[in-house]
Amino acid sequence: MAKLPGLGPRSARRVLLYLLKDTDQRMIPLGEALRQVSDQVKICGQCGYVDEVDPCSLCQNTRRKKHMICVVSDVSDVWAFERSGFYAGQYHVLGGTLSVMGGITPDTLNIPSLLKRTYPPVTEVILALNATVSGQTTAFYLSKRLQEQHSHIKITTLARGIPLGGEVDYLDDGTLMTAFTERLALPLSEEDQQAQK
Amino acid sequence: MAKLPGLGPRSARRVLLYLLKDTDQRMIPLGEALRQVSDQVKICGQCGYVDEVDPCSLCQNTRRKKHMICVVSDVSDVWAFERSGFYAGQYHVLGGTLSVMGGITPDTLNIPSLLKRTYPPVTEVILALNATVSGQTTAFYLSKRLQEQHSHIKITTLARGIPLGGEVDYLDDGTLMTAFTERLALPLSEEDQQAQK
Repeated sequence: MAKLPGLGPRSARRVLLYLLKDTDQRMIPLGEALRQVSDQVKICGQCGYVDEVDPCSLCQNTRRKKHMICVVSDVSDVWAFERSGFYAGQYHVLGGTLSVMGGITPDTLNIPSLLKRTYPPVTEVILALNATVSGQTTAFYLSKRLQEQHSHIKITTLARGIPLGGEVDYLDDGTLMTAFTERLALPLSEEDQQAQK
Repeated sequence: MAKLPGLGPRSARRVLLYLLKDTDQRMIPLGEALRQVSDQVKICGQCGYVDEVDPCSLCQNTRRKKHMICVVSDVSDVWAFERSGFYAGQYHVLGGTLSVMGGITPDTLNIPSLLKRTYPPVTEVILALNATVSGQTTAFYLSKRLQEQHSHIKITTLARGIPLGGEVDYLDDGTLMTAFTERLALPLSEEDQQAQK
């Protein structure tokens, strides 16, 4: 229990004692629910998303555009995109980001299946990885691999800069510098203006 | 005293009582210091920055490039840029941002002096305003005014997107959407890569 993310030995003990207080109503149903979920949940063989069907409902959805693949590190990132609701293309879940310290190498991530997918009708791969060191290392690695193997595909990455509502005075130096270096010429195109509304 | 930013009636009373406890050592020196500062500090007639000389030391500095003007809303934003130390052009301090609610109209801001400055050798005006509603309204207004009067000048704005270290899962919807819409094609130019190091 203490190995769960966000739980230390202390809080794990607390959870356990709470469950033990009423094993019939708490512990057994939780165990049963976990067993059921693990039976039902499948990892999509195409994109790595978790769902009850394989290929997942996102991959099967014929209304979603086939020419864009948005590469994210985790399932929770897919949820973030789906919450916003502006993206209607495909996803690809890597299952983590490269990390020398954490022993996560390209082999342990969902990268081979990505390279297999990036053929027509796919025209663009969006690397929507975190702006952290390991996220950016992974993005750099992937862009190199994709360019080597699929030179016809457009590779893009999320813009870095000031977050919405951000104030210049409160930005860290790195963000301010990135926002400055990657500054945009005005007037913006109509598409950009739409997006900012 | 209660009109100072960050102080309410209660904290103003506390400050005042603290000063009254030792008028010779606290109240009189503070009053004296304020008088001295107000005598010495000048607002630069060219850029609106506060300094002891007019034109200010930033405007007078011959090492700073003359072809770029970075437009910011407040003096504290100049300090943010100077802390980072990557920018070596001119500044222009507006003294606020447009706000209908706050009664701040273009006339009350340092805009006429900006329009007077934007002639050769100036080739680029960078609108480094906050990514807030009033900051972006001001940027939009300024870009229109500058385009009308000085069509030869390049107008740019800070990039919006994921801040450094930001994680996709934790971004608000607006920032994620902006980062997506303004996504950049890879490989980046060498200049961009330098900036990101």
